[in-house]
Formats: sequence, C-alpha cells, structure tokens
Amino acid sequence: MAGLSVFDHFCEPDNSDMIKIGIVGATGYTGAELMRILAEHPQAELCVVTSRADAGKPVAELYPSLRGRVNIAYTDPQDGALNDCELVFFATPHGTSMHQVPALLEAGCRIIDLSADYRIRDAAVWETAYAEPHASPALLAEAVYGLPEWQPGALQDARLVACAGCYPTAVQLGLLPLLKAGVVDPQSLIADAKSGVSGAGRAAKIGSLFCETADSMHAYGVAGHRHLPEIEQGLSVFSGKAAVLTFVPHLAPMNRGIHATLYAQLSDPSADLQALFEACYANAPFVDVMPTGSHPATRSVRASNTCRLAVHRPGNGNTVVVLSVIDNLVKGASGQAVQCMNLMYGLDETTGLSLTGVLP
Amino acid sequence: MAGLSVFDHFCEPDNSDMIKIGIVGATGYTGAELMRILAEHPQAELCVVTSRADAGKPVAELYPSLRGRVNIAYTDPQDGALNDCELVFFATPHGTSMHQVPALLEAGCRIIDLSADYRIRDAAVWETAYAEPHASPALLAEAVYGLPEWQPGALQDARLVACAGCYPTAVQLGLLPLLKAGVVDPQSLIADAKSGVSGAGRAAKIGSLFCETADSMHAYGVAGHRHLPEIEQGLSVFSGKAAVLTFVPHLAPMNRGIHATLYAQLSDPSADLQALFEACYANAPFVDVMPTGSHPATRSVRASNTCRLAVHRPGNGNTVVVLSVIDNLVKGASGQAVQCMNLMYGLDETTGLSLTGVLP
Amino acid sequence: MAGLSVFDHFCEPDNSDMIKIGIVGATGYTGAELMRILAEHPQAELCVVTSRADAGKPVAELYPSLRGRVNIAYTDPQDGALNDCELVFFATPHGTSMHQVPALLEAGCRIIDLSADYRIRDAAVWETAYAEPHASPALLAEAVYGLPEWQPGALQDARLVACAGCYPTAVQLGLLPLLKAGVVDPQSLIADAKSGVSGAGRAAKIGSLFCETADSMHAYGVAGHRHLPEIEQGLSVFSGKAAVLTFVPHLAPMNRGIHATLYAQLSDPSADLQALFEACYANAPFVDVMPTGSHPATRSVRASNTCRLAVHRPGNGNTVVVLSVIDNLVKGASGQAVQCMNLMYGLDETTGLSLTGVLP
Amino acid sequence: MAGLSVFDHFCEPDNSDMIKIGIVGATGYTGAELMRILAEHPQAELCVVTSRADAGKPVAELYPSLRGRVNIAYTDPQDGALNDCELVFFATPHGTSMHQVPALLEAGCRIIDLSADYRIRDAAVWETAYAEPHASPALLAEAVYGLPEWQPGALQDARLVACAGCYPTAVQLGLLPLLKAGVVDPQSLIADAKSGVSGAGRAAKIGSLFCETADSMHAYGVAGHRHLPEIEQGLSVFSGKAAVLTFVPHLAPMNRGIHATLYAQLSDPSADLQALFEACYANAPFVDVMPTGSHPATRSVRASNTCRLAVHRPGNGNTVVVLSVIDNLVKGASGQAVQCMNLMYGLDETTGLSLTGVLP
Repeated sequence: MAGLSVFDHFCEPDNSDMIKIGIVGATGYTGAELMRILAEHPQAELCVVTSRADAGKPVAELYPSLRGRVNIAYTDPQDGALNDCELVFFATPHGTSMHQVPALLEAGCRIIDLSADYRIRDAAVWETAYAEPHASPALLAEAVYGLPEWQPGALQDARLVACAGCYPTAVQLGLLPLLKAGVVDPQSLIADAKSGVSGAGRAAKIGSLFCETADSMHAYGVAGHRHLPEIEQGLSVFSGKAAVLTFVPHLAPMNRGIHATLYAQLSDPSADLQALFEACYANAPFVDVMPTGSHPATRSVRASNTCRLAVHRPGNGNTVVVLSVIDNLVKGASGQAVQCMNLMYGLDETTGLSLTGVLP
Repeated sequence: MAGLSVFDHFCEPDNSDMIKIGIVGATGYTGAELMRILAEHPQAELCVVTSRADAGKPVAELYPSLRGRVNIAYTDPQDGALNDCELVFFATPHGTSMHQVPALLEAGCRIIDLSADYRIRDAAVWETAYAEPHASPALLAEAVYGLPEWQPGALQDARLVACAGCYPTAVQLGLLPLLKAGVVDPQSLIADAKSGVSGAGRAAKIGSLFCETADSMHAYGVAGHRHLPEIEQGLSVFSGKAAVLTFVPHLAPMNRGIHATLYAQLSDPSADLQALFEACYANAPFVDVMPTGSHPATRSVRASNTCRLAVHRPGNGNTVVVLSVIDNLVKGASGQAVQCMNLMYGLDETTGLSLTGVLP
Repeated sequence: MAGLSVFDHFCEPDNSDMIKIGIVGATGYTGAELMRILAEHPQAELCVVTSRADAGKPVAELYPSLRGRVNIAYTDPQDGALNDCELVFFATPHGTSMHQVPALLEAGCRIIDLSADYRIRDAAVWETAYAEPHASPALLAEAVYGLPEWQPGALQDARLVACAGCYPTAVQLGLLPLLKAGVVDPQSLIADAKSGVSGAGRAAKIGSLFCETADSMHAYGVAGHRHLPEIEQGLSVFSGKAAVLTFVPHLAPMNRGIHATLYAQLSDPSADLQALFEACYANAPFVDVMPTGSHPATRSVRASNTCRLAVHRPGNGNTVVVLSVIDNLVKGASGQAVQCMNLMYGLDETTGLSLTGVLP
Repeated sequence: MAGLSVFDHFCEPDNSDMIKIGIVGATGYTGAELMRILAEHPQAELCVVTSRADAGKPVAELYPSLRGRVNIAYTDPQDGALNDCELVFFATPHGTSMHQVPALLEAGCRIIDLSADYRIRDAAVWETAYAEPHASPALLAEAVYGLPEWQPGALQDARLVACAGCYPTAVQLGLLPLLKAGVVDPQSLIADAKSGVSGAGRAAKIGSLFCETADSMHAYGVAGHRHLPEIEQGLSVFSGKAAVLTFVPHLAPMNRGIHATLYAQLSDPSADLQALFEACYANAPFVDVMPTGSHPATRSVRASNTCRLAVHRPGNGNTVVVLSVIDNLVKGASGQAVQCMNLMYGLDETTGLSLTGVLP
C-alpha cells in the first residue's frame, strides 16, 4: 500500500499557507475523529499529537483505520512541540485544558477546546457541575462558545473557542428557533436524548462494555447531568429568554449518534413552525430542516457534520415535538471543531467537511 | 437428543387437569414466545397451533429454539381443531381475531387476544385508529382489558380478554400510580418510548431489516400512533381522570425491550412519590419498584415478565420523570397473556412465569 | 413486588435434601448466569456468594435482573462460610481456584471449577499456557474433566470437577464423533470459532468496550490461544488418537454465543456422517444433531444448555464441515457446571436445565 | 441547508471533461454507496439513476443521508436516458444486466457491472450456479474481471467490466499471493468467511430482518454458494494453478464488513510469507499488508476502499492462516467499481477514493 499518505512526520517550515495543528489527547474517539477529518482538509497540516500514556507509539498502531493517512507518532505533551503550532485542539476529558491553555495562548497558539472546561461563563456553576475548582477562570469571559450556527461572527477573531458539547448541540439547534421566535414557553422544556456509546469515550469502564450496553437501553443522570447548565445557558443567551429544561439522557446500543426528542408548550398556536425552522437555518450548510412529517434517523448523519431536524405538532395540540439528530463525534465534537476552525481562519465554513452520511 | 420433549402431538383426552390450548398465528414472535413460556407451564397443554401459510410444517422448523420443546406441527386454522380447545390465544396482527372470536366463543372456548381488536371500548375510536370497520363490535363491552395489575378480579370470569399492548403496558404501569393518587396534572402527560425491533413483528418489511435499524435510532408515528387511544383510555378508566398524552415512539437497535420515559407535571409537590409507587405495587409480583435514584435497563427484564419502575423528580422541580422498562414480547405480550390465563383459571398468578431476566 | 423470592438470606439447617452451595467469584457473567440457573433448580440452595471487591453489597445491586430472585449479599471469601457448603463453584478467572481448592476439599466440600485451573492434566503444559506456576499440581490427576457427554460416569463420584471451557466444549462436541469413529485424519483439524463478547468476561478492558467490538469482527490469538492445549488434550483422550488442531478464535458483535466451524479431512469416504452423529448423541439430552443440510444459529441456543450440531460434506468432497453452536455462558460454562452437579449428586441430568432458547 | 449540492438535475452538455454516468438499480445498498462515493469524485457527473419501482421519487427520499448531495430523481430504466451516458453502472441483482448490456454497448456506453452476470467465463458454469440461461453469453469472453490489483492493465480499454464480488475480493486478495508464489497446495484451500447483513441487499426478506440476525451468527450455503465458482476461477486464472476451495460463508450481526479467514497447507516451509505479501502488494494503494502478528478488524476498513491483510503461521506449522478484511459495500462493490472506472478512464487509481475508515 502506498500513495495515500497524507501527513508527513513533521511540518515543513515553508508550507506557509497550511494551518499548523496540534491535538492534545488524540487517543480518544473525538481525537481520532479529528484526525480522520483533518486528513482530508486541504488547509490543515497535522504536526503534533500528544498522549502521555502512548508517547512514541505511531497513531496508526492505536487506530489502524488511519494507517496510510496519519503517519506521525504520539509525543509527550510536555516536550514543547505544541508551542510551535498555530492552532491546538484539546480532545481531552474535562479538567485538562484549563491547566494548559493559558501557557499555549501565551505562546501565541489559538485554541479550540472540545472539552467542557471553557463552556460555562460562570465559574461557580462550572465548579458545581464538575466538582472541582476551575484552574483558569479569568479566560471564561474571553472564550467563544463554539456553536457556529448561532454566532458565526464571534468565531472569526477568537483566540479560544469552547466547542459546544454533543447533547448541547443537538438540543440547542432543535429548540433555539422556537425560543428565539418566542412561540413556546421557555419554562417547560423537555429534552429526552438518546446517545450512542462513543459519547462515553474510550475509557476502560464497566458501564461502557459491549455486554453492559448491547441489546439494551437505560436512562442515566436523571437527577442532574453536567450538560444541563451548558444547555440552559445556551438556550437563554441565544434566545434572550430564561430557559428551564428537564433533561433525560439515555444510553442506546449504537456506536455513534444522538437522537434528541424535544418537547415544548406552544404559546403562539398560530405559528407556522415549518416555515420558522426553514427560515432560521436557510443559510446554515450543516443544518437540514426536513420536510413536514419527517422522522430523521441518526444513521442518516453517521460520520457527517449534518444536524437533521423535523418539527411536529401532534394532533394539532399545544405540544411541539422537535426531532434532532447528529453524529455525536462529528457535529457533536470533531466536525464542529473543524467548522469553528474554518470560521476562525476565514475559510469557507464547509472546507474539508463534505462528509456524506455513511448508510447503512 | 431426547428426554426434554414437552408437548405431544395431540392432547390426551384423559389429561383432565391440564388446560387444553390453541394458538392462532403462532408463526410470529409473540406466538413463538407464548410457546416458549407455555412449554414450561405445569398446567398448560398445547394442542393446536395454526398458520395458514405454514400448515403442515413442524413448529421447530420455523423456530429451531423450540426443537425438543414443541413437537407439534402447524395446522390450518379452518380445520376445526381450535373448537376443541378450552382456551385459544390469538397472536395475530390486528384485524384477524375480530372475525374468528365470535364462533370460538360460541363453541365454548375462552379467548385471550394479544392483538388490538378488542382493546378499545368505543368501536368508532377503534375504527378510526385501525382504518377499517370492526367485525364484532358487540363483544367490545364484554372484553376484559388484560392489564392484570389494575383489574385482577375482572379477569377471573372473563370469556374474552384483550391483552394490553406493549407500549400501553409500559406507559400505564408507570403513569397510573401518579394519576390514581391525583398528584399530577392529567392533561400534560408525555411518554417518550423506545422499542426493540421485535415490536414490529416478523413480517418481511424493509423498515425492519437489520441494515435499516442497526446502529441507529429514529422516532416514528409522531403525528399519531395506534396505541395512543388505547393508552389514553386506560389511563382515564383506571384513574378516573380524563388523561391527555403526547406519545412519541422510537425504534431502537435491540431485539427486545421497551423503555418508556414518562413526564408529568406535579400538582401536589408534597407527595412522597417513592412511597406512593411502592404502596401501589406492594402486591404485584411482576412490578418491581426500584430504589430511589435507580435507572432500570431493559436488559434487566429481558425474557422475563417483570416491569421495573423508577420515579425521579429532577432538581426537586415540578416535573416527575418515571422510567418504565419491560420486555415487549413478555410483559408486553405473551407473558402478560399467561398471567391473564393464570387469573382466569384460578391459578397462582406467577405459575409458569418464574422467568429470570437473561443478562447479558 | 413480592412472592417470587427464591433464596433466603441464609441456609436453613434442617433443609436436608437441598444441596448447600457456595459460589466464588459471583460478580462476573458466568457467576451471574450460575445464579440465574440455580434460582430455578429444585435441589439447589444458594448459601454463600463471595466477592472481595463487593463484599457486603446485595447481589441484586450488581445484577438487577436477579432482584426478587437472589436475595443474599456478597461476602468476603476469607470469612470461612464456604467451608460449610457442600458444593462450591469457582466462577473465577484462571489462577484463583488452584490456591483455594485444596483447603476446601480438606474441609469436605466438593468442587466444580469453571475456570481453567484443573483442566489440563500435565502441569507443565498448563504452566506454559498460563505463564505461571501451578499452585496445586497434585490435584490435576484427580480432577475430572467436565464434559458430561464424553464421560458421564466419571462425574458421579468426583470431588473435583474441572468444567470444560467454552471454545473447548463447542469444538470437542463437534469433532469427537468423527475422531472416535476414525473417519477423519486427526492431524489436519481446523476450528474457526466465533465468540460473543461475554466470553471476555466483565472486566473493564478497552478491547471489550461496545465501541471497540460493535459492528465489527476480528480474529485474535492466531499465534496460539490458551484453549488450544485443552482442546487437543480432550480430542486425543476421548478419541484415542493424537489430534492436531489449528484453532482461530474470532470476536463477534454479540452478547452470547459461540459458533464453531470445524473442518476435517475425510479418511473414510464411505462413512454415513449424519447417522454417525445421530447415534453418537442419541442419549445426550443437551446435544441436538440437526437434520441434514441444517445451519444452526447461535440464537437458537441463547440462554439454553443445548449444543446444536450440523454435519456437511460440501460437494461430496473430502472436507467435512461441522457447525457447532452453544451459548458460551450456559453450555460453555454455567449450564454445563449444573449438568455436572446433577450427575455428581445422582439427579436427573436435566434437572433445573429445561431452559428453552430465547429467540429473538 | 444549502451550499453542499453536488449533482444537478441534468448533465450540462458543455461540461466536457466530466464522465457522464448512469446507474441502473440505484435503490439498493451498493447503488446508494456508489452515489455516496461519486458525489465526491471530481471527474464524475451523475446524470441518470433508474428504478422501475421508484421512478419519479427523489433519491434523497429513499436515502436521506444523500440529501443535499444527490439532487436528482429516479427515472424509468426504459426511458432511453441511459443511452446518453458515457458510463453505466449496474448495481442490480444478478439476472438483470445480461439483458440490458448488449443494447447499451451498442449505444456506445461503457459498462461496469457490479452484479454477477459477466463474472464467469464459462456460460455453462454460470447457468448452473445461477439456475437460469445466460442472456448474452457472447459477451462473456470480452468482459474484463474487475479485480484491479490482479489485472490493472486489462481495465484500461475495457468496454465491459464485471466487478469482482464481495466474498471473491476478500478471498482472492488473501490467497493469490500464496498461490502465485507456489508456496501452498492449491488443492486444499479453505475460506471461512463472515459477512455483514448488507451483503444480502435491501430486499424485504425475513432472513435479513434485525430480529433474525442481531446478536447471533450462523453459516449458510455450506452445500454450495454461488460465489464458489467465481472464486475458484479467479484463483486458478491469476495464479496459473487449478485451485480447489472449501468455502463456508457466515452471516454476522453487523451492517458492513467481510472477514475472510483463509487456510492453506504450506508446500514450501522455507517461504518468507510476510515478505512475499509485502512485495506482492507494494504498489497496490488499496491493499494494506499489516505487520507480522496483526489481527485486522472489519471496522478498520468501514466505509473505505482498503483491504487489510495479515498472514500467520500458527505454531510454525504447515497451516498458513491469512486474515483478510474489506467493507463489502466499498472494496467489495462500489468502491472497487470506481477504482475500475478510474483505470478505464486513465485517472489516478485513487481519485475520489481517499475514504478513511470510519471508526468506531
């Protein structure tokens, strides 16, 4: 096998129009997905991928799917190579980036953080949700929330982007058009969300074993999930209304995909809901408002950066039902991160993201 | 292999304390599950299983899992053998039993219908939901609704039992304690239900193919599902309050199992929800109210007749969340039918139903 | 929920005709499966289940499927309670029972070991395969290999039974009739085996995660699997011919089930293979020789103790193909252990094992 | 959503450097996969997709994953539009293309047939395998077998290409290096192959239902599978040795993927097998010979055109084991078809095929 190699082992100094990129935490699923996407991105040059545990090991050894695509090896995050990158992605669990970002910003890097560390504006709320002190709260005000459909302009000059979480993306894209238009009661929202198991990451946990999850479903975190404050913040900030949400996540026996089923009480029964959604996302290349009566399946967006939405009003009653599907690893994580990158660097928003859904 | 044979090819005339049983439509999954359960039932003698398409073929040819267990062959439903059974189960799609039941009742058989034909009291409502005229509406008043936890007494003398549907069982068992106690608003109920693919039956439909359902989720029938009037009827009749429900079913990539996530608005914030559920089902052998904070998984009831419930009040707010899981083929169909049979014949309700969940 | 309780919290001293049972390592899948089966066994009284890590925790907390079935809690294996059991099962990983069995035998217990510790007669072979010294090699000669179909008599008086492994069961049941009859070359055997993920146990390993195994297949251990010497020993001992096997196990995306596809070169082309298999297993209640031309599916034996076999001779050539399916947790582990128990205690071999396959 | 549209509703007459393409039978999975791939191909212009049953329906209605990607509708195959295409793909079941290809060749089209109709050189063998007369046997001699790694040159001028089947691709790529080098006995080959359910197509068959295939495995066609003569022909033609194969296909519970486990008897024990494979495929961009000791997983090639191979010699014995994985819909069908197209039109073999494996 030859001829398909994409990334060289180091960044050419004279390859000046390519964005020199580092990834911290590239051994997990979002990191691997980021590599899969960047391998096809015409403006991206992957220079450094770090992993404390796997330093020295070629990426392709952990991810044989990337053999011939990503030909570099993991390096230690402390070896300084990240400082030479223009842009550093964090694909780490929460609690990591908040320690490392300040120094990288100092070194002149721009940051796209896929973790939760900079998503919540209020440090106290973050500390309650994540049960530890925030290491760099001063940066929370500067961080731009990475949900491009709702603030594309803000991303252009951002030094630090906090990508929206997977559940938050599916829920906000589905509810915001209704809230922004003022046609539903913002105090009685419900999000019943189902996620594939990759949302739990690649950690060796009993709860993520095949035999604990296959051929079964269950809810979790009903008492309170860490994504709830992030979602309520986003719904409130982008719509201008104080939103209250009941959020029930479920684990579903699939690799990828989130299906959020959203319920709201109509306050304006005369609203043309279909037209409202279509107008809202007319210029959003990655949000597909489906025809009236549709039921999007998660597989229709598998491995793609698209969010598909369908809005229903069963029995012409007062309850609006919005169906919102994304691939949690793409539009819910790595694809959205690349979409943010495109906007930060003045590229076309869709560059490198023409990923068609893999079905079946 | 020998020694495990359970059913002989015909019913012994002198085996007088066994219930002589026929099954109509025993080629589908609920029919097969009924045979699996009855094969272990100490009072059941399976005499006749009918199938127009597969008449003459041994049951074990279609269902190798029943080899050595069920040793009879399918016969034609028109050959009169059903008339000699004491009890006939219908495991047919809707629209079949309503034509055949009157003659069987005439012949002296008792009937347990797993299909939807006699579940709804109002013929007009049935005809709208199922889009055809009802063939024996006069029997609707006599039919006893087979949800044993909510009317065990009524089943004892029943000639005709209409077993509750799969979704209706999961939803009613979860919501009725709240409605009956009058602690929630009966007009703002939501049931977000996820079902395994066996709920769609064994028909050769593209939508039920592995490659159309695996590794994916989608909602369906949001505009209106046939189970909605049945559920609203049950909720209203058993609680005495007119209930209005938004019902959104989803297809999940699993063989068996329904996970119903139920939402209601609390009207009495002082109610002790856990105590209320525990008291309600204290004497119900097949309803397991789990400890506070639990998240039941469908696999915990796989192949068993148990419904597991957990009640939550997230953030101590006004929305109650009930998690309700059943095996759609057992408590949602064939197990429940045998539970009804036990009550009809004065047997212990649990006879032949000590099926422990198969996990993993 | 009430009325279905099976095991009390301790063993009644006067319940003299019940076998008092302990299980070591009952937190794994084979231990849980053993409890599921014993909960229905009319002669079994489960007295002690041990777990170092989970001592004090009710069994039903780890396995909600056993709520109302197994009402005891895990205890520490060092607290002496096992000594009071008549029969102790080890459902531990290899390397545990060999340390604890000698003292329990001393205390008068009989032992059924589901682990690999006493399966191989030659300590040196065991030590090479498992890469550690054997702690009680003197017992290897006494241990009876628990493959009941091939030595039912030997089990009756056994103090120590080493249950056959999952792959070894599927492979030996399929190949031994051919070897015993001398119709194939014992030196050119191939076993291509596919196992569900529960075969890897309930340990938190990355390789057993849903996202590492779902929707995919791969071989493993091609260079040499620990089950190979066990299989070659069994094939040779029971057939009287020195057998040489190429064994390639694969991981398949399913919870349970082993499908062994077995290849042998015919040395006697005139043999009536179907008749040979049927005669061989005519009195084996748990081996089902299927009709000519059959293709057994693992789901046909899901949750049951049956092994289904089909023998083929493609194109009437010299290669015999045997298809052998079992449930790795039942006939490949816990069901087989109970079958051994029945024979050890003079019970009918099928007592408590009338488990019909759960399909779908 | 806008901005991602790829195909217009009709072909521009002046877009002269694009290959004008038609697809017959684009409602099945291989047809859909062909559209997914061609949507990204810089030289392809999809002009016509036909379907008798779905004529008039937009492609994206059947395949929502293609919304915004493929904006044309199915047309009737009889309406003549195919004649205006330069290149017509057949993604039909066997028995269709052999009737339509002669007229299309006459009209000047080039043909890539993904079905089996022109794969076998000897019409009598084809007629036996497919149990019907061949409609255009005169073309069998002209048809070029589409396994590009083994005859890249022959494809360049081909008018009619018969793409290799899915099983035949996985098996031939794995066995041919050994046969060609003369290091194994060509008369004792075994292929134990496991396929995902998409191999059975999108037809509404009971055997392909989720509940008939999920969480289970079974062999099929052991007595003789239609792919066997195709494989034996390919092995013999490309290696120059008469090959005899035992072929046992299995259905595995996954959407995509074939895992072929191949067994051969070594005739030259001194052969360096790893070196032999690496040399054989040094210039093949889509065949990845993995390092010694590897176990490729089907998911590592999911949605990509790569075949990954690993060669083993267990216990240094005489049996060689080759592990060969492909995505049956890509390298086993549509990706290989596009690879053939690239060679037919003098494009780089990898054009439009830089599809990285989607994992998990």
